Amino acid sequence: MTDKINHIGIAVKSLEQSIPLYRDVLKMPLETIEEVVDQKVRVAMFQTGESRIELLEATSPDSPIAKFIEKNGEGIHHIAYQVSDLQSELNRLKEEGVRLVDQEPRAGAHGTRIAFLHPKATGGVLTELCEECH
Amino acid sequence: MTDKINHIGIAVKSLEQSIPLYRDVLKMPLETIEEVVDQKVRVAMFQTGESRIELLEATSPDSPIAKFIEKNGEGIHHIAYQVSDLQSELNRLKEEGVRLVDQEPRAGAHGTRIAFLHPKATGGVLTELCEECH
Repeated sequence: MTDKINHIGIAVKSLEQSIPLYRDVLKMPLETIEEVVDQKVRVAMFQTGESRIELLEATSPDSPIAKFIEKNGEGIHHIAYQVSDLQSELNRLKEEGVRLVDQEPRAGAHGTRIAFLHPKATGGVLTELCEECH
Repeated sequence: MTDKINHIGIAVKSLEQSIPLYRDVLKMPLETIEEVVDQKVRVAMFQTGESRIELLEATSPDSPIAKFIEKNGEGIHHIAYQVSDLQSELNRLKEEGVRLVDQEPRAGAHGTRIAFLHPKATGGVLTELCEECH
Protein backbone atom coordinates (compact mmCIF):
# COMPACT_ATOMS: atom_id res chain seq x y z
CA MET A 1 0.00 0.00 0.00
CA THR A 2 1.54 3.32 -1.10
CA ASP A 3 0.92 6.21 1.29
CA LYS A 4 1.87 9.07 -1.05
CA ILE A 5 4.34 10.24 -3.67
CA ASN A 6 7.52 10.64 -1.66
CA HIS A 7 9.44 12.27 -4.50
CA ILE A 8 9.92 12.56 -8.23
CA GLY A 9 13.52 12.22 -9.39
CA ILE A 10 14.46 14.37 -12.40
CA ALA A 11 17.74 13.87 -14.27
CA VAL A 12 19.46 17.19 -15.09
CA LYS A 13 22.79 18.07 -16.61
CA SER A 14 23.47 20.82 -14.12
CA LEU A 15 21.87 21.62 -10.76
CA GLU A 16 22.94 25.23 -11.13
CA GLN A 17 21.09 25.57 -14.44
CA SER A 18 17.97 23.69 -13.31
CA ILE A 19 17.48 24.97 -9.76
CA PRO A 20 16.08 28.38 -10.84
CA LEU A 21 13.10 26.74 -12.61
CA TYR A 22 11.91 25.03 -9.44
CA ARG A 23 12.99 27.67 -6.92
CA ASP A 24 12.20 30.90 -8.77
CA VAL A 25 9.63 29.99 -11.44
CA LEU A 26 7.61 27.28 -9.68
CA LYS A 27 8.40 28.81 -6.25
CA MET A 28 9.22 25.61 -4.41
CA PRO A 29 11.36 25.89 -1.27
CA LEU A 30 14.85 24.44 -1.89
CA GLU A 31 15.48 22.25 1.14
CA THR A 32 18.95 20.78 0.74
CA ILE A 33 21.64 19.91 -1.75
CA GLU A 34 23.43 16.68 -0.88
CA GLU A 35 25.76 14.23 -2.55
CA VAL A 36 24.90 10.51 -2.58
CA VAL A 37 28.37 9.10 -3.09
CA ASP A 38 27.50 5.50 -3.94
CA GLN A 39 24.95 6.62 -6.56
CA LYS A 40 27.39 9.20 -7.97
CA VAL A 41 24.82 11.99 -7.89
CA ARG A 42 24.28 15.38 -6.35
CA VAL A 43 20.66 15.92 -5.35
CA ALA A 44 18.76 19.21 -4.93
CA MET A 45 15.52 18.65 -2.98
CA PHE A 46 12.48 20.90 -3.20
CA GLN A 47 9.30 20.65 -1.14
CA THR A 48 5.87 20.80 -2.77
CA GLY A 49 2.97 19.81 -0.54
CA GLU A 50 3.70 16.43 1.07
CA SER A 51 6.12 15.45 -1.73
CA ARG A 52 9.54 16.46 -2.98
CA ILE A 53 11.08 17.17 -6.35
CA GLU A 54 14.65 15.84 -6.50
CA LEU A 55 16.96 17.15 -9.21
CA LEU A 56 19.70 14.60 -9.89
CA GLU A 57 23.06 15.62 -11.37
CA ALA A 58 25.74 13.04 -12.18
CA THR A 59 29.08 13.46 -10.43
CA SER A 60 30.82 10.99 -12.77
CA PRO A 61 30.38 9.84 -16.40
CA ASP A 62 29.56 6.32 -15.15
CA SER A 63 26.78 7.53 -12.86
CA PRO A 64 23.36 6.00 -13.65
CA ILE A 65 22.13 9.57 -14.18
CA ALA A 66 24.84 10.33 -16.75
CA LYS A 67 23.89 7.17 -18.63
CA PHE A 68 20.19 8.05 -18.46
CA ILE A 69 20.79 11.54 -19.91
CA GLU A 70 23.04 10.13 -22.63
CA LYS A 71 20.22 7.82 -23.70
CA ASN A 72 17.09 9.91 -23.05
CA GLY A 73 18.16 13.49 -22.50
CA GLU A 74 17.15 15.43 -19.40
CA GLY A 75 13.80 14.50 -17.90
CA ILE A 76 11.91 12.52 -15.29
CA HIS A 77 14.00 9.60 -14.06
CA HIS A 78 11.79 7.91 -11.47
CA ILE A 79 8.79 8.16 -9.16
CA ALA A 80 9.17 7.13 -5.53
CA TYR A 81 6.12 6.09 -3.54
CA GLN A 82 6.25 6.05 0.22
CA VAL A 83 5.32 2.90 2.10
CA SER A 84 5.27 2.38 5.85
CA ASP A 85 6.90 -1.08 5.87
CA LEU A 86 9.17 -1.65 2.88
CA GLN A 87 10.27 -5.16 3.86
CA SER A 88 6.72 -6.46 4.05
CA GLU A 89 5.83 -4.74 0.74
CA LEU A 90 8.80 -6.43 -0.95
CA ASN A 91 7.76 -9.77 0.52
CA ARG A 92 4.24 -9.29 -0.83
CA LEU A 93 5.50 -8.28 -4.29
CA LYS A 94 7.82 -11.29 -4.45
CA GLU A 95 4.97 -13.59 -3.50
CA GLU A 96 2.87 -12.03 -6.28
CA GLY A 97 5.65 -12.60 -8.81
CA VAL A 98 6.41 -8.90 -9.44
CA ARG A 99 9.93 -8.42 -10.82
CA LEU A 100 12.21 -6.34 -8.59
CA VAL A 101 15.61 -4.71 -9.04
CA ASP A 102 16.24 -4.77 -5.28
CA GLN A 103 15.21 -7.94 -3.48
CA GLU A 104 15.91 -6.33 -0.11
CA PRO A 105 15.74 -2.71 1.11
CA ARG A 106 18.92 -0.70 0.64
CA ALA A 107 20.02 2.72 1.90
CA GLY A 108 18.74 5.78 0.01
CA ALA A 109 19.34 9.50 0.45
CA HIS A 110 18.84 11.22 3.84
CA GLY A 111 18.23 8.10 5.90
CA THR A 112 15.56 6.40 3.80
CA ARG A 113 15.32 2.71 2.89
CA ILE A 114 14.51 2.14 -0.77
CA ALA A 115 13.96 -0.54 -3.40
CA PHE A 116 13.32 -0.31 -7.14
CA LEU A 117 10.79 -2.38 -9.01
CA HIS A 118 12.00 -3.81 -12.32
CA PRO A 119 11.27 -1.48 -15.27
CA LYS A 120 9.76 -4.43 -17.17
CA ALA A 121 7.14 -4.68 -14.41
CA THR A 122 6.19 -1.01 -14.49
CA GLY A 123 5.49 -0.08 -18.12
CA GLY A 124 8.49 2.13 -18.74
CA VAL A 125 8.21 4.07 -15.47
CA LEU A 126 11.16 3.56 -13.14
CA THR A 127 9.39 3.04 -9.82
CA GLU A 128 10.92 3.20 -6.35
CA LEU A 129 9.37 2.26 -3.04
CA CYS A 130 10.70 4.26 -0.14
CA GLU A 131 10.40 4.03 3.63
CA GLU A 132 11.22 7.08 5.73
CA CYS A 133 13.26 6.13 8.80
CA HIS A 134 12.77 8.67 11.55
CA MET B 1 3.49 29.24 -5.86
CA THR B 2 2.78 25.52 -6.28
CA ASP B 3 0.71 23.99 -3.48
CA LYS B 4 1.37 20.32 -4.26
CA ILE B 5 1.69 17.74 -7.01
CA ASN B 6 -1.87 17.52 -8.32
CA HIS B 7 -1.13 14.56 -10.57
CA ILE B 8 1.41 12.73 -12.69
CA GLY B 9 0.23 11.86 -16.19
CA ILE B 10 1.54 8.55 -17.56
CA ALA B 11 1.12 7.60 -21.24
CA VAL B 12 0.07 3.96 -21.66
CA LYS B 13 -0.93 1.89 -24.65
CA SER B 14 -3.83 0.25 -22.85
CA LEU B 15 -5.64 1.17 -19.64
CA GLU B 16 -6.71 -2.42 -19.24
CA GLN B 17 -3.10 -3.64 -19.31
CA SER B 18 -1.74 -0.88 -17.07
CA ILE B 19 -4.46 -0.54 -14.43
CA PRO B 20 -3.47 -3.74 -12.54
CA LEU B 21 0.02 -2.36 -11.76
CA TYR B 22 -1.37 0.66 -9.93
CA ARG B 23 -4.52 -0.93 -8.49
CA ASP B 24 -3.26 -4.39 -7.52
CA VAL B 25 0.53 -4.11 -7.21
CA LEU B 26 0.93 -0.57 -5.85
CA LYS B 27 -2.51 -0.77 -4.15
CA MET B 28 -3.79 2.66 -5.13
CA PRO B 29 -7.55 3.21 -5.12
CA LEU B 30 -8.87 3.56 -8.69
CA GLU B 31 -11.15 6.58 -8.54
CA THR B 32 -12.61 7.04 -12.00
CA ILE B 33 -12.13 6.29 -15.66
CA GLU B 34 -13.21 9.16 -17.88
CA GLU B 35 -12.83 10.24 -21.49
CA VAL B 36 -11.53 13.72 -22.28
CA VAL B 37 -12.93 14.09 -25.76
CA ASP B 38 -11.01 17.17 -26.94
CA GLN B 39 -7.69 15.65 -25.82
CA LYS B 40 -8.59 12.30 -27.40
CA VAL B 41 -7.68 10.35 -24.27
CA ARG B 42 -9.24 8.02 -21.77
CA VAL B 43 -7.94 8.66 -18.25
CA ALA B 44 -7.80 6.27 -15.29
CA MET B 45 -7.25 8.18 -12.04
CA PHE B 46 -5.71 6.70 -8.90
CA GLN B 47 -5.35 8.39 -5.52
CA THR B 48 -2.06 8.31 -3.61
CA GLY B 49 -1.86 10.66 -0.65
CA GLU B 50 -2.87 14.16 -1.74
CA SER B 51 -1.94 13.47 -5.39
CA ARG B 52 -3.23 11.37 -8.27
CA ILE B 53 -1.69 9.10 -10.84
CA GLU B 54 -3.44 9.51 -14.20
CA LEU B 55 -3.00 6.81 -16.83
CA LEU B 56 -3.58 8.26 -20.30
CA GLU B 57 -4.66 6.10 -23.22
CA ALA B 58 -5.12 7.54 -26.71
CA THR B 59 -8.57 7.18 -28.27
CA SER B 60 -7.30 8.12 -31.73
CA PRO B 61 -4.00 7.82 -33.65
CA ASP B 62 -3.76 11.63 -33.79
CA SER B 63 -4.11 12.01 -30.01
CA PRO B 64 -1.13 13.76 -28.37
CA ILE B 65 -0.69 10.61 -26.27
CA ALA B 66 -0.50 8.36 -29.35
CA LYS B 67 2.19 10.65 -30.78
CA PHE B 68 4.08 10.69 -27.48
CA ILE B 69 4.14 6.87 -27.30
CA GLU B 70 5.19 6.61 -30.93
CA LYS B 71 8.20 8.82 -30.20
CA ASN B 72 9.10 7.86 -26.63
CA GLY B 73 7.32 4.63 -25.78
CA GLU B 74 5.14 4.31 -22.70
CA GLY B 75 6.18 6.41 -19.73
CA ILE B 76 5.69 9.60 -17.75
CA HIS B 77 4.07 12.27 -19.91
CA HIS B 78 3.74 15.26 -17.57
CA ILE B 79 3.70 16.55 -14.00
CA ALA B 80 0.87 18.82 -12.91
CA TYR B 81 1.36 21.16 -9.96
CA GLN B 82 -1.63 22.63 -8.22
CA VAL B 83 -1.87 26.39 -7.80
CA SER B 84 -4.66 28.33 -6.11
CA ASP B 85 -4.93 31.11 -8.71
CA LEU B 86 -3.86 29.99 -12.17
CA GLN B 87 -4.56 33.30 -13.93
CA SER B 88 -2.31 35.26 -11.58
CA GLU B 89 0.42 32.59 -11.86
CA LEU B 90 0.30 32.85 -15.66
CA ASN B 91 0.47 36.64 -15.43
CA ARG B 92 3.53 36.39 -13.18
CA LEU B 93 5.25 33.87 -15.48
CA LYS B 94 4.59 36.03 -18.54
CA GLU B 95 6.05 39.06 -16.75
CA GLU B 96 9.12 36.99 -15.89
CA GLY B 97 9.54 35.95 -19.52
CA VAL B 98 8.82 32.23 -18.97
CA ARG B 99 7.68 30.55 -22.20
CA LEU B 100 4.17 29.08 -22.05
CA VAL B 101 2.15 26.75 -24.27
CA ASP B 102 -1.13 28.16 -22.92
CA GLN B 103 -1.27 31.92 -22.47
CA GLU B 104 -4.64 31.65 -20.70
CA PRO B 105 -6.22 28.90 -18.56
CA ARG B 106 -8.15 26.26 -20.45
CA ALA B 107 -10.48 23.46 -19.35
CA GLY B 108 -8.87 20.24 -18.08
CA ALA B 109 -10.32 16.95 -16.86
CA HIS B 110 -12.99 16.83 -14.13
CA GLY B 111 -13.60 20.58 -13.89
CA THR B 112 -10.03 21.82 -13.51
CA ARG B 113 -8.43 24.81 -15.23
CA ILE B 114 -5.00 24.07 -16.62
CA ALA B 115 -2.09 25.55 -18.56
CA PHE B 116 1.13 24.01 -19.83
CA LEU B 117 4.53 25.64 -19.60
CA HIS B 118 6.66 25.40 -22.73
CA PRO B 119 8.92 22.29 -22.72
CA LYS B 120 11.88 24.51 -23.65
CA ALA B 121 11.37 26.34 -20.35
CA THR B 122 11.24 23.21 -18.22
CA GLY B 123 14.28 21.11 -19.10
CA GLY B 124 12.53 18.26 -20.88
CA VAL B 125 9.76 17.86 -18.29
CA LEU B 126 6.30 18.64 -19.62
CA THR B 127 4.89 20.76 -16.80
CA GLU B 128 1.25 21.67 -16.21
CA LEU B 129 -0.20 24.12 -13.73
CA CYS B 130 -3.64 23.18 -12.54
CA GLU B 131 -6.34 24.94 -10.52
CA GLU B 132 -9.06 22.86 -8.92
CA CYS B 133 -12.48 24.46 -9.38
CA HIS B 134 -14.89 23.30 -6.72
